[in-house]
Amino acid sequence: MSDRDALLFANEAFYRAFAGRDLKAMTELWSNEAPVACVHPGWPPIYGRDEVLKSWAAIIGNASQPQVQCHDARPFITGSGGFVICYEEVQGQYLLATNVFVRDGSAWRMVHHQSGPTSGKPAPTRPQLRVVN
Amino acid sequence: MSDRDALLFANEAFYRAFAGRDLKAMTELWSNEAPVACVHPGWPPIYGRDEVLKSWAAIIGNASQPQVQCHDARPFITGSGGFVICYEEVQGQYLLATNVFVRDGSAWRMVHHQSGPTSGKPAPTRPQLRVVN
Repeated sequence: MSDRDALLFANEAFYRAFAGRDLKAMTELWSNEAPVACVHPGWPPIYGRDEVLKSWAAIIGNASQPQVQCHDARPFITGSGGFVICYEEVQGQYLLATNVFVRDGSAWRMVHHQSGPTSGKPAPTRPQLRVVN
Repeated sequence: MSDRDALLFANEAFYRAFAGRDLKAMTELWSNEAPVACVHPGWPPIYGRDEVLKSWAAIIGNASQPQVQCHDARPFITGSGGFVICYEEVQGQYLLATNVFVRDGSAWRMVHHQSGPTSGKPAPTRPQLRVVN
């Protein structure tokens, strides 16, 4: 698997854990070596693994949390790190996310996520990932 | 200078170039080796150095562009990369930014910027950087 594919795979795993309400997978995905942070849409920033995972537990544990689909993910490799920019579709609206990862052996672990509103839409011609529960 | 200080210095240089409408400094700040991207508040994502710098030329060249101040910047080192989360104050409103950097010798070069709305406010007790023209 190429570096870019592995990075996209980690990004896909994040949305699979998110959409699948899989807190165990979400917990394993976030780095427990590098410092982490998270900015949910409109929220203040969250710093530190415990607080970040607490926020995901609350989101994933909320039965009325709408489904999310990831579209048009673009990987950027920067040495031992990397990030993915992608659209998130939530109830027919699009958000734009930056997901930052760090290498952990052959895997990539998440160190940061920021998502916010966008006027853009995913390119229709690019392959799209449909995350299904 | 510690790694964290150097990363914060690069982040400060970014806001200094932004507030000072200094396109030359902004151009030097962005990596010309690693792939780059940028998500201005509400915009669709911009991919590639030329397009990213074109967007900054338009923003910096816009005389009615309001001033920006950076507050409460927090550095995160992740191997050969790093990112800074900070508040941006624009006309009394706060945005939340993620700025991603990659090491280039002893300096840090920018590879990604995303800024968007937040309900948060910078911590009043942390030192704040006031960018002055």
